[in-house]
Amino acid sequence: MSINPRILKGFRDFLPQQESLRQSLIRTLEDGFAAFGFEPIDTPILEYTEVLLGKGGGETDKQVYRFTDHGKRDVAMRFDLTVPFARYMALHRNELYLPFKRYHISKVFRGENTQRGRYREFTQCDFDIVGTDSASADLEIITMMHHSFRRLHVPGVEIHVSHRGVFNRLLERYNVREHSEAVLRTVDKLRKVGADATRAELADIIGAETADRVLEFISSRGTMTEVIDTMERLLGGAIPETERLRHLAVALDALELSDDVVIDPSITRGLDYYTGVVFETFLHGVENIGSVCSGGRYDDLISLYSKESMPGVGASIGLDRLIAALEELGIAGNSQASADVLITMQDPQLLSHYHRIAATLRSHGIRCEVYPDERKLGQQFAFAERKHIPFALICGRQEYDAGTVNVRVLASRTNLDGIELSALSPAFLDRYRDDETKSLES
Amino acid sequence: MSINPRILKGFRDFLPQQESLRQSLIRTLEDGFAAFGFEPIDTPILEYTEVLLGKGGGETDKQVYRFTDHGKRDVAMRFDLTVPFARYMALHRNELYLPFKRYHISKVFRGENTQRGRYREFTQCDFDIVGTDSASADLEIITMMHHSFRRLHVPGVEIHVSHRGVFNRLLERYNVREHSEAVLRTVDKLRKVGADATRAELADIIGAETADRVLEFISSRGTMTEVIDTMERLLGGAIPETERLRHLAVALDALELSDDVVIDPSITRGLDYYTGVVFETFLHGVENIGSVCSGGRYDDLISLYSKESMPGVGASIGLDRLIAALEELGIAGNSQASADVLITMQDPQLLSHYHRIAATLRSHGIRCEVYPDERKLGQQFAFAERKHIPFALICGRQEYDAGTVNVRVLASRTNLDGIELSALSPAFLDRYRDDETKSLES
Repeated sequence: MSINPRILKGFRDFLPQQESLRQSLIRTLEDGFAAFGFEPIDTPILEYTEVLLGKGGGETDKQVYRFTDHGKRDVAMRFDLTVPFARYMALHRNELYLPFKRYHISKVFRGENTQRGRYREFTQCDFDIVGTDSASADLEIITMMHHSFRRLHVPGVEIHVSHRGVFNRLLERYNVREHSEAVLRTVDKLRKVGADATRAELADIIGAETADRVLEFISSRGTMTEVIDTMERLLGGAIPETERLRHLAVALDALELSDDVVIDPSITRGLDYYTGVVFETFLHGVENIGSVCSGGRYDDLISLYSKESMPGVGASIGLDRLIAALEELGIAGNSQASADVLITMQDPQLLSHYHRIAATLRSHGIRCEVYPDERKLGQQFAFAERKHIPFALICGRQEYDAGTVNVRVLASRTNLDGIELSALSPAFLDRYRDDETKSLES
Repeated sequence: MSINPRILKGFRDFLPQQESLRQSLIRTLEDGFAAFGFEPIDTPILEYTEVLLGKGGGETDKQVYRFTDHGKRDVAMRFDLTVPFARYMALHRNELYLPFKRYHISKVFRGENTQRGRYREFTQCDFDIVGTDSASADLEIITMMHHSFRRLHVPGVEIHVSHRGVFNRLLERYNVREHSEAVLRTVDKLRKVGADATRAELADIIGAETADRVLEFISSRGTMTEVIDTMERLLGGAIPETERLRHLAVALDALELSDDVVIDPSITRGLDYYTGVVFETFLHGVENIGSVCSGGRYDDLISLYSKESMPGVGASIGLDRLIAALEELGIAGNSQASADVLITMQDPQLLSHYHRIAATLRSHGIRCEVYPDERKLGQQFAFAERKHIPFALICGRQEYDAGTVNVRVLASRTNLDGIELSALSPAFLDRYRDDETKSLES
């Protein structure tokens, strides 16, 4: 009896095409982060449960993969990259220089209900600047988010920015601060349920008049400056929080990013631990997918593990959601070829010759492989086609003696016969790769 | 009371320098694999215990992290990348084209005794060609191993190749095949305990005379052809297994790799599941660290999960051991700078200007960051020095008005004053980066 090769619900295998796409996305993001001086870190997937759950009691606790290890330790698999980062900064504070800028792209685990299309193993991509509460750091996170999405060649990106403190001050002004949790929860659903339902629900909590003010506040639209003006009008004047937003707006304008960034007071990041600026990111054409990159500024990262406190600002990209967005936009990268050239097996006596050709091509930066078995040429071509390899080389005894190869352009089913080995450069291939979609004479 | 930010024994945090090195190593390996047409895959970290342990009963079982999940499933964290690959091939056989060439670089988990310097979470790098038993595939794995280590700029690499079947045939010839496990175990310790102790132990198992023959066999040295000649003499003639080795030797010679590959009959890969060629890899200067890349050919990968069988050949690099080797060789990459340029904060009024300079530099491929806080210039320089950033830009109101910046070359503590912004190219920086070690006039 063989064992059923099944995988757990909510977990995934990645086939080569999918994994290539993930890796190329991750490289693009990493290179973008490096351009801003961010450095990579990593932490264990398994940690002490106490370290990951802290005092516990949250919704997350029920979802965490938790067990007792061989040494009777209570351990758990990480469910995000934020908690391990806090623990990391508390532990390594003296080995790092503040302000510290890190990114971390890795897997996290949650035993969630998979019916909502959620995965139990998924990849997060976090980046933060800790050890400073300057506007410059806020600005750097926003410009880096913008830069990253531009590098992914999305048709358009819109970063929505607000300030959590401004919202709190508004609730204080109307003496409803004690309802802040319920109000935030209601406001968070605005996009889903619409303005009327939100107004009705808010009125039940804080009264109809205040509900109108709150809705006016979060619905405010216009240029960055206009929205900040509205905020200050409803607050009865400028406050440090609106001044921070104005400072950012001026800088974003100077950086010519004002077309792609809006001040959007409806962004509150619900019950998260943010205390300063908050942001969400929407890609043009797939706004329905929701924010592909969210974050904000927080007062303190490490107080759970340390007597010190450490402010910071950061954001997180959900890689799976981003891939879904890019796929919906049709820019997720087409079927990539695993190699540029397949060297066919014509004559097993010439095995060394084939591998020597391969070594030469590789030294010119051409990715190639030798078909390992003796098969009909048609089967070897079919193999190349299925793997989207654009060229096949054919070399029998006759070509070997002449020091040449025949090149098969698979897309056009054309043969280029008697090509000198020394002519096989990337430029040569590029010339005929362009012909792939044309229909040449055979 | 704050929570102790400790991590589990056998698990590690990676600081930015370490993680940068790991990532750049992984990229180098990936690019090398891609040059051979290998494609990446990924599998879940958590799987059904039955899938990972099969019929169970091995030494591994005691080390595996195993628990019951929220859905009462018996689950385990993967302890290698071979078993998940077998399961993957059985499950996705019809979505993939054989011969299939994959690599997989990811973390695995074993609750091992950490006293021997072993980690409980470590990274493996596996690559295989499955669906063919051709000599061409054996050759491709060996040349790819060679290619990969060359790309890492190691001073020298020596790949030791043998054939598991040849050893079995030798034991048959002397009618001691039933002692094969005990003999393999003894032979495996040869490097550690020396020839005399091995001879004595072997004599206890198979008698003094046969022990001498076995030792003569595994101690055989010389050119690839000479060793194969010795093998055939001791076996009483050529057999298919020695013919496969001879085929490889001829091809490796033609590929000019014979200086870096030896036939070494002492390589048996102990009790592993290999059935054909086997190999280990040693780096010049750090032979004591042991093999940094081992593998071989196997008859069947998937029979545990399928009625089909699937031959293959592959190898695995232990990334942690490889890093230890590169560090011992002093080529593990020096402290890499997190950025090329630190733009200092001289005047907070010029915040937008600093970020605009940063954006311009990035568009030229220069990695840079803006120091976010107002601090004394000396402190900002010290920050750059500690992060190995070679240049700092200084721009106060006066320089802003003049459209220039002052450039501080940190290593030589030199200032280049009044540099036009448009002059700040990678070439400009490279010119002065070279001066880092010189002592210029200030």
